[in-house]
Amino acid sequence: MKILHSLLTVASLALAGLVSRAANDERPNVIIIYADDLGWGDLGCYGNPVILTPNLDRMATEGMRFTDFYSAAEVCTPSRAALLTGRYPVRSGMCHDRFRVLRNNSAGGLPREEVTLPELLQGRGYATGMVGKWHLGHLPEHLPPHHGFDSYFGLPFSNDMMPAPDAPKGRPKFFEENNAYWRTPLIRGTEVIEAQPDQRQLTRRYTEESVRFIREKKAAPFFLYVAHTFPHVPLFASERFRGKSAAGIYGDVIAELDWSVGEILGTLRAEGLDKKTLVVFSSDNGPWLIFNHHGGSAGPLREGKGSTWEGGMRVPGIAWWPGRIAAGVVQHEIATTMDLFTTSAKLAGATVPSDRPIDGFDISPLFFGSGLVLRDAYFFYRGSTLYAARLGHWKAHFITRSGYGDDQPEPHEPPQLYHLGEDPGERFDRAKENPAVIAKITEAVARHRAALQVAPSQLVATVPARAN
Amino acid sequence: MKILHSLLTVASLALAGLVSRAANDERPNVIIIYADDLGWGDLGCYGNPVILTPNLDRMATEGMRFTDFYSAAEVCTPSRAALLTGRYPVRSGMCHDRFRVLRNNSAGGLPREEVTLPELLQGRGYATGMVGKWHLGHLPEHLPPHHGFDSYFGLPFSNDMMPAPDAPKGRPKFFEENNAYWRTPLIRGTEVIEAQPDQRQLTRRYTEESVRFIREKKAAPFFLYVAHTFPHVPLFASERFRGKSAAGIYGDVIAELDWSVGEILGTLRAEGLDKKTLVVFSSDNGPWLIFNHHGGSAGPLREGKGSTWEGGMRVPGIAWWPGRIAAGVVQHEIATTMDLFTTSAKLAGATVPSDRPIDGFDISPLFFGSGLVLRDAYFFYRGSTLYAARLGHWKAHFITRSGYGDDQPEPHEPPQLYHLGEDPGERFDRAKENPAVIAKITEAVARHRAALQVAPSQLVATVPARAN
Repeated sequence: MKILHSLLTVASLALAGLVSRAANDERPNVIIIYADDLGWGDLGCYGNPVILTPNLDRMATEGMRFTDFYSAAEVCTPSRAALLTGRYPVRSGMCHDRFRVLRNNSAGGLPREEVTLPELLQGRGYATGMVGKWHLGHLPEHLPPHHGFDSYFGLPFSNDMMPAPDAPKGRPKFFEENNAYWRTPLIRGTEVIEAQPDQRQLTRRYTEESVRFIREKKAAPFFLYVAHTFPHVPLFASERFRGKSAAGIYGDVIAELDWSVGEILGTLRAEGLDKKTLVVFSSDNGPWLIFNHHGGSAGPLREGKGSTWEGGMRVPGIAWWPGRIAAGVVQHEIATTMDLFTTSAKLAGATVPSDRPIDGFDISPLFFGSGLVLRDAYFFYRGSTLYAARLGHWKAHFITRSGYGDDQPEPHEPPQLYHLGEDPGERFDRAKENPAVIAKITEAVARHRAALQVAPSQLVATVPARAN
Repeated sequence: MKILHSLLTVASLALAGLVSRAANDERPNVIIIYADDLGWGDLGCYGNPVILTPNLDRMATEGMRFTDFYSAAEVCTPSRAALLTGRYPVRSGMCHDRFRVLRNNSAGGLPREEVTLPELLQGRGYATGMVGKWHLGHLPEHLPPHHGFDSYFGLPFSNDMMPAPDAPKGRPKFFEENNAYWRTPLIRGTEVIEAQPDQRQLTRRYTEESVRFIREKKAAPFFLYVAHTFPHVPLFASERFRGKSAAGIYGDVIAELDWSVGEILGTLRAEGLDKKTLVVFSSDNGPWLIFNHHGGSAGPLREGKGSTWEGGMRVPGIAWWPGRIAAGVVQHEIATTMDLFTTSAKLAGATVPSDRPIDGFDISPLFFGSGLVLRDAYFFYRGSTLYAARLGHWKAHFITRSGYGDDQPEPHEPPQLYHLGEDPGERFDRAKENPAVIAKITEAVARHRAALQVAPSQLVATVPARAN
């Protein structure tokens, strides 16, 4: 496999030379940087009182910072499926009420019939690379090279999904920063290259890979998807960052991610690519609050990862494209990770599939200040069940449930209703005074459901667990 | 009284001409803008997801934004006493466990023996003016002109303290935005000039007074204290701002305060005073959460006004002095409103009293990036009782109690202990693992108590309530 990879690398390098960008090619490079379990309130520019994120703060100052940016799911696997397909995960089968995410013994993965963003861009001559956590199927046939990525380097799933056989049971090991407890393998292409990578080095290695990709692919337009392993627990930072933050290891980890963003933007500047590259930074879902000070913060928002309260799905969203996206804009319009699919495709001159529903909108009018985006309601799924819907500033919760508590789903009739403008923390139910608002949202849900085809879940079938 | 006031005005104008500033006078003008019940999380630059504060955000970008800025009390009267005296309110008698603040029938006020910041600056030739809410004694002998202010225009106490006799009882009236329900008088000098001012116009009128003061006093150095009436409930905004914010009336009110700050900074720029003026923006305590969406937000911090949790006393703090305070600095060191007393005095060349304890530190090393401030623990009082203390990143709660709930004070032995770096939301008590930290904080409290002289409270004695 290593030889095959090398051959592919050589071939793609040659190809990159052949299709080198015409001078008048206006299509941007696209880089999506995706953190794992980073909360809305974890960055300086989102009001974190402790954690230092000078590079992301600068990215926001030079670009557009979204206050109402949503991941399309409350946990990892469905969120990533939605990002790459532009569709609610219930359409691709990449969610499940009980299993929630793919595990280390899952047989399934992102179905081949799904059209991914890198496939669309490949079709337009883009070099495509992925670095980091995949979590859309760990069997070789599900890995990124089968979904439109020329290259891949990273972990197939979360960094806690394969404890070492002799690791202690239970939660305390999460707080010990002991790499010997963990064995999630590191993959290049479709091949495991390290059975137990040193997680303290992952952010640094992902960054080096990303920088190398940019330098190697700069002749043609490229798409790079950097999906960081952190701040998902267990937390690890390299020596340079370990013990430096007043916020403890969580702050160290975020500081290293921030450094990584700085390296990537700095490389773009150094290579003269900054004005040709759209970079978007976001997170797959909210903070994993049950991990206490090893989990992040949703700031003023309610709850976190796993829930359909705002803290579970509203995440940082920063878009940067010097010269095209105006500097220092705080954007209060709704945007979602699924929009990145549609918007990136459009900017690359690709056509989004017309044979299936695509839920992402083209948000380039927001980026470029040329107009608004007309969207219907936004839907909050927990697994494959619709829990809530937002229309304008109003959000109706038809069902509520904590992200990871022992509570059962609690249906509400009428739904709970919150005004996210006056009450972003979802504290004051105003259903009683606003039946007309509820009627409107209920109609939007009915429209959505009438047209919805639910795909069979990919998260159920199993294979023998990957040996650890 | 009006005649006397006019004479004083003329006299002070003449004086201003006489002591006009020498070209090499490096002493800055000082302006303190104090909001009422504004929460840590209420401004865009502190991570508010909805409320628009472009002028304060710009002020922060051009100046220094403090993440760990404290008022010296959890409610209004003691907070303002501390700001003007540089001392914990327990030293001046301006606090009380049960009464908490001065009321419309209080006989007391700030004792004459207290040395105020405007008195110190007056002694150095500063013109001194106050605009806005006083709340340090409403009887004529307690008003600002008796405490070092050449001029005064504003309300003697909170805008909810004199409901009209025919106003409905209870809470609902707070949410109706009906000015007829409220009668807190408007004072100029020491004389009531309007029995029932239109509260919708207060922010605009305070701003016009402030701008006029700056223009009239610009020849000599000046001190201006602008203590806004809002966002204390009941909320009112002028027509220009009413109904404009997605955050509702609370957002409208903050937007108007933000406009006001913009007017003041704009006036300084237009008059060529920006490089000669230190402006500090802060709030008297945290948000009044029991007023739901008419109360603000402490962002990620716990609880609000009235409590000694961080949300009750940690507030926005922005310092601005173009050319002297470096632009765009986020300052994570502790600073307090009492420090403004000591620091302003020093910058004005005044000597702080040496015959009494002063709790404020000179934070000009933080402003100018020339060093750190060595401070002992910071103490959190609820009324005249010490509830908590912070030393470095650790905060020990000896007693806890909600800001306005029905609960009783709950003593803790050992105290609850939180690490404000790793856990700014004060969620995870780590007392058990850190006895040495508790010992250190307990020693600091003992040192403080050993030297403390508690003054008799000024908040008990009454007179017949001011007729309404």
